[in-house]
Formats: sequence, C-alpha cells, structure tokens
Amino acid sequence: MSRTDGIGQPVAAIDTPALVLDLDAMARNIGRMAGYAAERGLRLRPHAKTHKSAWIAAQQMAAGAVGVCVQKTSEAEALVAAGIGDVFVTNEVIDHAKLARLAALARRCRLALAVDSAVGVERLAAATRAAGTEIAVFVEIDVGQGRCGVAPAQAGALARRVVAAGLRFAGLQAYHGGAQHLRSSAERAAAIEQAAACVRRAQAALAGAGLACPLVSGAGSGSFAFEAGSGLWGELQAGSYLLMDRDYADNVPTDDVPCFEHALFVKSQVISRADDHAVVDAGHKSHAIDSGLPRVWGREDLAFVNGGDEHGILRRRDAAAALPALGDTVWLVPGHCDPTVNLHDTLVGVRGGLAQGIVERLIRVDARGCLT
Amino acid sequence: MSRTDGIGQPVAAIDTPALVLDLDAMARNIGRMAGYAAERGLRLRPHAKTHKSAWIAAQQMAAGAVGVCVQKTSEAEALVAAGIGDVFVTNEVIDHAKLARLAALARRCRLALAVDSAVGVERLAAATRAAGTEIAVFVEIDVGQGRCGVAPAQAGALARRVVAAGLRFAGLQAYHGGAQHLRSSAERAAAIEQAAACVRRAQAALAGAGLACPLVSGAGSGSFAFEAGSGLWGELQAGSYLLMDRDYADNVPTDDVPCFEHALFVKSQVISRADDHAVVDAGHKSHAIDSGLPRVWGREDLAFVNGGDEHGILRRRDAAAALPALGDTVWLVPGHCDPTVNLHDTLVGVRGGLAQGIVERLIRVDARGCLT
Repeated sequence: MSRTDGIGQPVAAIDTPALVLDLDAMARNIGRMAGYAAERGLRLRPHAKTHKSAWIAAQQMAAGAVGVCVQKTSEAEALVAAGIGDVFVTNEVIDHAKLARLAALARRCRLALAVDSAVGVERLAAATRAAGTEIAVFVEIDVGQGRCGVAPAQAGALARRVVAAGLRFAGLQAYHGGAQHLRSSAERAAAIEQAAACVRRAQAALAGAGLACPLVSGAGSGSFAFEAGSGLWGELQAGSYLLMDRDYADNVPTDDVPCFEHALFVKSQVISRADDHAVVDAGHKSHAIDSGLPRVWGREDLAFVNGGDEHGILRRRDAAAALPALGDTVWLVPGHCDPTVNLHDTLVGVRGGLAQGIVERLIRVDARGCLT
Repeated sequence: MSRTDGIGQPVAAIDTPALVLDLDAMARNIGRMAGYAAERGLRLRPHAKTHKSAWIAAQQMAAGAVGVCVQKTSEAEALVAAGIGDVFVTNEVIDHAKLARLAALARRCRLALAVDSAVGVERLAAATRAAGTEIAVFVEIDVGQGRCGVAPAQAGALARRVVAAGLRFAGLQAYHGGAQHLRSSAERAAAIEQAAACVRRAQAALAGAGLACPLVSGAGSGSFAFEAGSGLWGELQAGSYLLMDRDYADNVPTDDVPCFEHALFVKSQVISRADDHAVVDAGHKSHAIDSGLPRVWGREDLAFVNGGDEHGILRRRDAAAALPALGDTVWLVPGHCDPTVNLHDTLVGVRGGLAQGIVERLIRVDARGCLT
C-alpha cells in the first residue's frame, strides 16, 4: 500500500510500522562517499539495489556518481523509466526475452551488463544486433565468493569472445560479497588482498589475449577502502553506505575510512504489554531478518526477540530497563537494508531528526518487487 | 512490478523469478480443509495473512469458510475494498487513527478485533461510538506463545470491561503460534493440551465474571486437529494449509488429518554455472528465509545454499547429481509461505501442473505490503 499523505506532519503522526529515512543522515552519507571517491580520482557507481529509488539515485548522481548499478533487468527498466540515464546490471542475464528487453532499454540510457559464460555473450550479442543498440560488457570474475563469475585465468578467453561477437568489452566486474561482513578490518583487508590477486591474474589473462582492461568495477560498503587502496579498481559499487544497517554497524570500522550513519529506521508501536515484555507491530514483513534481527535504536537496554511476521517482542537486557508502554513509539535499525527496503512501497523521508523532525518527502521505491 | 500478461501461455513462458500457484493443488487443499471442518461442525475462518488475496479468500468462502482472518488494519481495508465481507483482525490495535479506520470499515463488512488490554477496549469503544458502528470483540489469551494476550485468569475481568464499554463480547482468541512447527505430532499435541488448559481457565474466569463464552477461535495448520479434537475451539484459523511450505512439510504428520500439498513454488532460472555449483536468479528477495532456505522441488539430490538477496546457489548433495545447465528452470518450495507471498504483487496461477501446465490466471496480492 502506498502512503500518499503526511508531508509536513511531525514524525509522531507517521502510521506504523513505517520505513523512515533520515534525510539529513542520508545526505551526509552521500557526501562522505562522494568525497572519498573524488579525492582518490575513483568513479563512484553506487548499487541501487539498496534503495531501488530513482529520486535517491538522482541525489547520488548530483553528488558526483557516474550512474548506478542494479541486479535485475526489471530494476533497470524501473529506474530508467523514472529518469536514470546510466545503469550497469552487475549480474548475468541468460533469458532471451530479458536480453531483448535490455537491448531495447539501451535505446533510452547508457547500459552495461556482466557476463560469465560464452552462452551469455552469444545471446547478448544476438539481442543487441537485433535491436541495433549497444550494451557495454564486463566480464565477471569470481574473486572469492564462489557465486557467479569465471575463474580469473579464463577472463582473457571470455573477453576475446565478447570482442569477437562485436560487443564492447568494458572491463572486469570484481565484487566480493563474502568479504563485506567479516567483522574485523584485518579480515576484510585479507579477503580483498585475495580478490586483488584474482584481478591481477585476470588482467594478465586479458593481456595474454591481447586485450587492455579499461576498468575494474566492484567493492562494497564493508571493503571499499581496500579496493580503493589497491590501485586496481577504478570504480566503486558500494550501496549500503547510503542507509547503513545493523549488520554493517556490527563491523569493526577501518581506520581512515568515512564513518556512515544509520539513515534507515522502522518506526513501530507497542500494541501489547506484559510484565516481562512489550510487543511492537513490526515483524519480519516490516524488516528483513536474513542478516539477523533489528536493533532497538537508543535503547541498548532492550533486546528485540523474533515475534514472527507481524510482531516484535522487546525484553529487558537488564533488570532495571523500563519497558515501553502501550502506544509508545519504538525505533528499530533493520538488520539488512536492501531486502528491508524491498518490503516497502514508500520511504517516509524525515528532515530534522527522528525525535522532532517533519515529514518532508515520500520517496517511491520505484523498483520494489522488481525481481525479474 | 505487476505482471500483466501471460494468460494462456505455457509454464515455460513465465518470466523468472516468479511466484507460481498450482491452482489444482490449491483447490484440493481448500476442499480438504473445508471438508474437515464441515464434518466436525466447526467454523473455518482461514487466515488471509497467508495469501493476502481477495480472489483466494472468495474461493475459501465459496467452499464454506465463514470469512477470513487478517493481522493488520490495512489488510482488512484492502480485502474489504476487493469484496470480502467478513473479517476478523486477530491482533491488537492501539493507535487511535487505526481504530477510527476500523470503525469506519465496519460500515462495509462484518468486523471483529482482538483485545488484550483495558486501553485497547476503551479506545475501541470510543472509536465505534464515534462512528456509530459495531466491531465484535475477542479477548485474546496467551495460550503458551508468550507474545500477545492476557493471562487466562484475567479473561473474565477484561471481558467485563468489553461489555461495560458497550461492545459485543464475541469470545476468546486462542492461538498458539509456537506449537505449529514442533516437529513431532506428540509435541504439538502436548502444546495444544496446555493451550486447552488455558482456554478452560479463561472460560472459568468468564463464568466467574458472569459471562458466557460464545466462541473460541484459533488453531493453525500444524495443530488444528488437536484444537478440533479438544471440543473447546469452535472456529479454526489455519491459513498455511492452502499453500504449504517447506517448513510445514518438515513436520511429521498427525494421523487421520488431511495431507496438504505444496501449491506455492518459485520458478527460477540458472544464470551462472561452475563445475561444482549452479546459480539461479532467485534469492531472498524472491522467497522469505526466516524459516529456513527453500527446497529444490523434485531434486532431492540438490541442496539450495544461500546466495544472498538475488541469487540461489545449487550444490550436489551426492557426487552423482547432475547440476542443471545454464538457462534451465529450477522449481523451489519456499521455506515460509506467508512472508514469501508478501514479496510479490502477483501470483501466477497455473492449471495442469508445473511441467505441462498453462497460466490460467494472474492473482493480485491485494494486501501486499499492507503492514499498518
């Protein structure tokens, strides 16, 4: 259900549960990451799978981002339809019909796609040939996650196929999802050191195939300082820095890296009280729990216990904690921002803080549910 | 994104990932539960939080259900707007604005609400008085889950408040969510035996307060045979029997209880292949993983490994298993049906089975994202 009103109202008037965006905190996060990339001469292409919103993508691009990343064909379609002009689908697409849609979409924006198979290359080439359009191609290499991507040594052969098929080879897609939530900075550094070794091997394979490597694109909010420091990556794809979540906040920070603030909160209300617990109206239909339960914001003395799809249970962490009363507002920091945003049609944008702020803007999650 | 076409097409044409409903299996599940309740003279009021669809609710009511349950005010609004005329909100509502919305909604349907506090009773009474409407009131008792609900001994005093406030006391809400996935039938039987003892204590408290108990409503798909056999519950609220999920299928069945079939599947496609794994285009933005990962349907020799928001990783369970090829279709049985449906705007209704069937109907998830 889309929210359609509330602008100009105080935070207290926001119906619960609601996904609330602290616009001031988000703007600071956008500025910090844009400044970080600019100082180092790196391109910033934030991942829009985090927010799925053209308005937010436009804020990031106004601050210097060259475009955005997405994961799905329908996400690209939704953001381009809402005005975004430069999109990199950092994922493999094999389905003929989807490739035809992407080839058609390339009439309306600059578009790039990742490939990790000869089949993917041939099908993409056929689709763009039929449409008479161009899609830039990144060869994805597996840099340690064990999901998509070819082995680095195969990058040269696959890039040769890209070129032979008449497509433009744009560089390497090299993202290590598994490194982002290693808790210590040293662990993340070690994982990206391994990823960098993979990139070097892939670059050697490209050179062996007689191809230059125009760009290496990748990095996430947990690791980007290491990719940036390697001298290999030229484009950063971090997304979660925008909103931050409990899981990223649980990482031990890296020295000399901007500190990002929580900008995304679930506003919930206590609907039931017992002596030993309170129940709020936000469960895991309101916030994703794939990366663990939310944190109760500003109340370290309360624990959030899983209450199922529609409820959250708050218990005392220490005996002195005062449980909130019936009707009280409780703010939650979601465990994982990306799939949490995907549960909501609208982000309620607040200016002036959670306590005393005003609803300034309702932000449509344009690509919510865009899975295909 | 809503799907808008595909009717009359073969299953092979369904874009992935898609939430596919086997209409034949669902119809058999509806018939089995309706028959079970009718044979025992019990009212059936299935929980629509499972499917959130007015069309499906109408199928259940055509087979004999007296109405449906929902959890949220906005869910009730969405289903009533789409034609459902009898709704029980089996949850507490404390917010004044929501209570005013419910009181207004009661002009358009038969409506009931659960309460577990004097504050809830007083606020509801004020709202219905202001609107000039009636909402039937069930006093919720905690029968073992430790979430909402008063202690059974307090049911009489709270029901007296209901009556004193000029509201109609309709009975007890007695649902034990924690019992549904205890794996053995004996464990579920023992949990509902405890719940039945709670109901008897609450009924004694009502009698002590001079009140009859018109109805006890509750039960879920894992336990309903025990509530039905107790002679206490007069109305069954099971919901998941309609679709079934991996988590319910992992229960050891109860003797002499209808066996329900999987009717809900995620159709996915292999988009990346390596020697030791295949990657499909369905991750936990396509299916909820709060109750564990999906099962690969018809391929017990493959394990689904968490690949994040947008990917699933398939690995061999035994060395002889053939991994699917690039472009192949893979069917998944979601771990938990309710929050999975809530991720999708549309269910793709197929007649004639997953292998050879035809898309007969696109079913709108009317209350998708209705959290408030």
